[in-house]
Amino acid sequence: MATHYFTASSLDGFIATPDHSLDWLLTKNVDPDGPMGYQAFVENIGALVMGASTYEWVLRHEQGAWGYTQPTWVMTHRDLPVPDGADVRIAQGDVRAVHAEMTAAADGADLWVVGGGELAGQFADAGLLDEVWVQYAPVTLGDGAPLLPRSLDLELVDVVRNGDFLCGRYLLVR
Amino acid sequence: MATHYFTASSLDGFIATPDHSLDWLLTKNVDPDGPMGYQAFVENIGALVMGASTYEWVLRHEQGAWGYTQPTWVMTHRDLPVPDGADVRIAQGDVRAVHAEMTAAADGADLWVVGGGELAGQFADAGLLDEVWVQYAPVTLGDGAPLLPRSLDLELVDVVRNGDFLCGRYLLVR
Repeated sequence: MATHYFTASSLDGFIATPDHSLDWLLTKNVDPDGPMGYQAFVENIGALVMGASTYEWVLRHEQGAWGYTQPTWVMTHRDLPVPDGADVRIAQGDVRAVHAEMTAAADGADLWVVGGGELAGQFADAGLLDEVWVQYAPVTLGDGAPLLPRSLDLELVDVVRNGDFLCGRYLLVR
Repeated sequence: MATHYFTASSLDGFIATPDHSLDWLLTKNVDPDGPMGYQAFVENIGALVMGASTYEWVLRHEQGAWGYTQPTWVMTHRDLPVPDGADVRIAQGDVRAVHAEMTAAADGADLWVVGGGELAGQFADAGLLDEVWVQYAPVTLGDGAPLLPRSLDLELVDVVRNGDFLCGRYLLVR
């Protein structure tokens, strides 16, 4: 059972523009069923966790629908809406408690830290992040939300091209 | 004849730590003669340009020796030393004039913007940057000198692994 941070990024290490836009990303070509793609990744995921900005982006983007069948923790101090039928659990505080709840809920499947970078960093700080998967889109943004605002050593496991994306899979070195 | 920005980067888009260190990079494994490696790249280079911080790092790292046979422009307003026998030309101002001088000196060979990111950005602003080659080291830094502080569209040409590095080659989209 492993905890993954699976995310797209600009070449210069931003996962969203300063105003939380992903337009630069969604116009690029990727095959979800292709190598290191979303489909095979998400099939092994038993629980998700995301920060408030990521969650709000998903809500806006999905326009009230909810695409995940797995239980999802949202780390926020704000009062955010939950779509009908979505298994969304609002949480705060130490990620270790959240990780323990997610592990129990996932029943042996893997965990996905959807984003943002600061949340992934908190999992890394706690020694609870095992893998980082980055899909680099062919753009630079110059500014925005940081990919992973920590100083970390990783080990490169796999390299592949998927459509317009340069994809790398890494293990955290502890 | 093309102008390349060929550089290593952390996964989160920094080419040096805030105090200009590359220690995180130099401990990692790469084959200069391997795919997308330095050796084949530099053989096609007829002239180099770099900013003051990059130049000072090279001087410190090489301890007075000079590793480049090609004429090298250094963009700086400061009075910096030049190693004996090095073809180093101190320059300021518009990169277009420097690019013209480099083109003449390179005699049909390619040009290399060594760094930093702001200088590469100035070449991109002027429409004078053709390719970006990034070798991602398996680390995050969290802060430092930015890879390419601009908003740019690129086209992915090639993807390869070389040792510990995830390597991508891009064309600028104009």
